[in-house]
Amino acid sequence: MPRRQSSENSLVAKIQSKFSESKRRAKPSSRQLSIAIGDDAALFRPMRGHETILTCDWSLEGMHFLRGKHPADSVGWKCLARAVSDIAAMGGMPRCFLLSLALPTELTGKWFGEFLDGLHRAAKAFDCHLAGGDTTRRDEILINVTVVGEIERGQALRRDTAKAGDILFVSGRLGEAEHELQILRSQRGKINRRDPDLRKHLYPEPRLALAQWLAEKQLASAAMDLSDGLSTDVARLCAASRVGARIDAGKLPVVSLQQREKSSRCGPHGPRNSAAHAVETDGALQLALHGGDDYELLFTVPPQKAGGIPPIFAGVPLLSIGEITKSRKILLVGESRVPTELCPAGWDPFR
Amino acid sequence: MPRRQSSENSLVAKIQSKFSESKRRAKPSSRQLSIAIGDDAALFRPMRGHETILTCDWSLEGMHFLRGKHPADSVGWKCLARAVSDIAAMGGMPRCFLLSLALPTELTGKWFGEFLDGLHRAAKAFDCHLAGGDTTRRDEILINVTVVGEIERGQALRRDTAKAGDILFVSGRLGEAEHELQILRSQRGKINRRDPDLRKHLYPEPRLALAQWLAEKQLASAAMDLSDGLSTDVARLCAASRVGARIDAGKLPVVSLQQREKSSRCGPHGPRNSAAHAVETDGALQLALHGGDDYELLFTVPPQKAGGIPPIFAGVPLLSIGEITKSRKILLVGESRVPTELCPAGWDPFR
Repeated sequence: MPRRQSSENSLVAKIQSKFSESKRRAKPSSRQLSIAIGDDAALFRPMRGHETILTCDWSLEGMHFLRGKHPADSVGWKCLARAVSDIAAMGGMPRCFLLSLALPTELTGKWFGEFLDGLHRAAKAFDCHLAGGDTTRRDEILINVTVVGEIERGQALRRDTAKAGDILFVSGRLGEAEHELQILRSQRGKINRRDPDLRKHLYPEPRLALAQWLAEKQLASAAMDLSDGLSTDVARLCAASRVGARIDAGKLPVVSLQQREKSSRCGPHGPRNSAAHAVETDGALQLALHGGDDYELLFTVPPQKAGGIPPIFAGVPLLSIGEITKSRKILLVGESRVPTELCPAGWDPFR
Repeated sequence: MPRRQSSENSLVAKIQSKFSESKRRAKPSSRQLSIAIGDDAALFRPMRGHETILTCDWSLEGMHFLRGKHPADSVGWKCLARAVSDIAAMGGMPRCFLLSLALPTELTGKWFGEFLDGLHRAAKAFDCHLAGGDTTRRDEILINVTVVGEIERGQALRRDTAKAGDILFVSGRLGEAEHELQILRSQRGKINRRDPDLRKHLYPEPRLALAQWLAEKQLASAAMDLSDGLSTDVARLCAASRVGARIDAGKLPVVSLQQREKSSRCGPHGPRNSAAHAVETDGALQLALHGGDDYELLFTVPPQKAGGIPPIFAGVPLLSIGEITKSRKILLVGESRVPTELCPAGWDPFR
C-alpha cells in the first residue's frame, strides 16, 4: 500500500521552494553553493585568498522569543540576524547558512509560512544563501542557525588584540532592544510587527557594512558584537586581550526613555520633576550597561587612527565611550568622577 | 560588589580546556583553524583546490537518546558521529565542528564531563576539531552539531547522479542499530556502555575511509548514508536521481537475531522450529528495510566498474543488493520472485 509522502520531506520541500532562485537572477555569491538543499550535505566553493568564518546561534522558544507574542516573521528574521551579527563582528561577509528547525506539527502551516517569509527577507538583506539544515518535530520551537562567512586572509577583526591606550567605540544606541522588549512585554495580546517602537528588538540589523569597512581600512585593533549587554561583552573583550577598560558613563549613547514612553504609551503626561528625570537617566544607563540583544558593534581603535572614525557611518552614529587600560579592571566613571568597578550583569542563561 | 564568573563562561572554559591541544602535538589538520573557541566566530583556512562540505544534525533528548538510559559518553560520541556521517556520504574529510548545547543546570557537572569525554574521543577518531559553538540553559538536553568537511573540487559523491543499470551496494549490516535499540529498551536500569551488543547503536562509525576511497577512485556514481532506514533513504536517492531501484531481499545483509539474542539474553534456549525461524527471518528483513541509525553507506556503481568493489573494505563487508532502474518505482524482490513495491517506512519524525 503506497504511503503518503513523508512529512519531513514535505517540510523540506516548502523550504526549498521558498528559497529557490532562478539561475538567471541568482547573485554571483549564490554560485559559490554548488549543492544546497537536497543532498546529505551542502557544497560551498570558498573564494581564493579568503578565510572561512563559522558561527552558530540558538534561538529557542521561551528564551529568545515567545510563541504567543513574537510574530513568526520576526522569529525568522532574527534567528538569522543574530548569527550574521557574529560574522559582522569579525568584519566578514556572510555567504550561506544552515537552518536546524524543530517544530510542533500544528505550526507547520501558517506559522511556518510566516517564519519562512522573515527568514527569506533576512537572507536577501544579508546576501546569505540557504545551504541546508535539519528539520524535526518537537513540542517546542527550537532553532539553530549556522552561518558561514568569508574574509580576506589576515583581515579578520578579533577580540584578543585590543591594546592599552586604544579608544573604545560603539555603534548605535545601547539598551534600545532591551527597552523595546520591556514595551513588548507590557503590551497585551498580539504584537503589531510594524510597530516602529519595536523595530530593533524584532528586526535587528547586524553592522555588516561598518565592520567590513573597519576591517578593510585596518582601523580597528579589536571588535566584537554586543549581544549580551555592554558590561558582559566588554569584560569578554578585555579578558581575551588581557587588558582592562575605563568607560565614561556620560558618553554612553543611551535610550531616551521619556520620548520612547510618549510615543509608545497612551495617556496624559504631566511635567516631570528632576527626581523623575534622575530615575529615568539611571534607568537608561542601566539599560545601556546591561541590556542585551542590541547587535551593535564594540570596537577599539589605536589613538593615532581614532581621527579616521566618522561621527556617523551609513546612518549609524559612532561614539567613543572610553579607553582600554593596562590595569585589567573594567571601570565606570560617572558624574562624581570616582571610578567604580563595572561587573558583568548582562544576559547569562545560567544565572 | 564583584560577582562570580558567569556560568556560561565557565561551561565554555570546561569545553575549551578539554579540547585544547598543545601546539607541538597538534595535527596539521588543526592548523587550518586560526581561531577556534573564544571569539565571536571561528576562522577556518580552506585547502586550495577543495570545496567545503557543510552539514548539521539535531540530537535531542527523548527523540535521539534517553537521559536515563543512554550513557552521556555515548551521547557525546554519537552527536558528532551522526553529522560526520553526512560528510562521509559525500566522500569528504571532516575538518572541524561547531557544538550548540543546551543543558539543564544539574547536568553541568558529571554528566557534562562524560559527554565531553565521548565527544572528545569522537573528535580524535574522526580528526575533526572543535571550532566553536553556543551554550545555553534548558530543562532538556538539546544538541545541534555542524560539521565542516573538505573534498577535492569536483569529486564529491552526490545523491542525484545514479543511472539506470547501476549496481546498488551497501556497507556493513542493515538493521543492526535498530535491533540494538530494541535490546537497550528491554534492559532495565542503566546501560553498560561497554556492552558489545550495543556498540553500533551507542558508538556508530561513519564510513569515512570507504567513501573517500570510492570518491578518489571515482567508482561510485552516487552515494548517501543510511540514517533513516533503507526503504526511506533509497527512495530519497532515487527521487533525487529520477530513477527507481530493484532490491533483492535475499541479498540484504541482515542481522542474525538468534545469535544476537543468545548473546544478549540469559536463560536456556531450546531447539527452534522452522516457523520460529521464518518469523525471525522476517523480523530481520523488516529491520534491514526500515531500521534507522545504521550510518552505513548506500552507493551505486556503473556495471563496468562493479568488479572494482571488493567484498570487504577495511574490515567492512560490501554487498550488491540490487540495481537502479529506469522505471521510477522502488521494487523489492523476495523468494517468490514477484516484485512488490517498497514504500518508505523508516524514521520520520513527523509521522
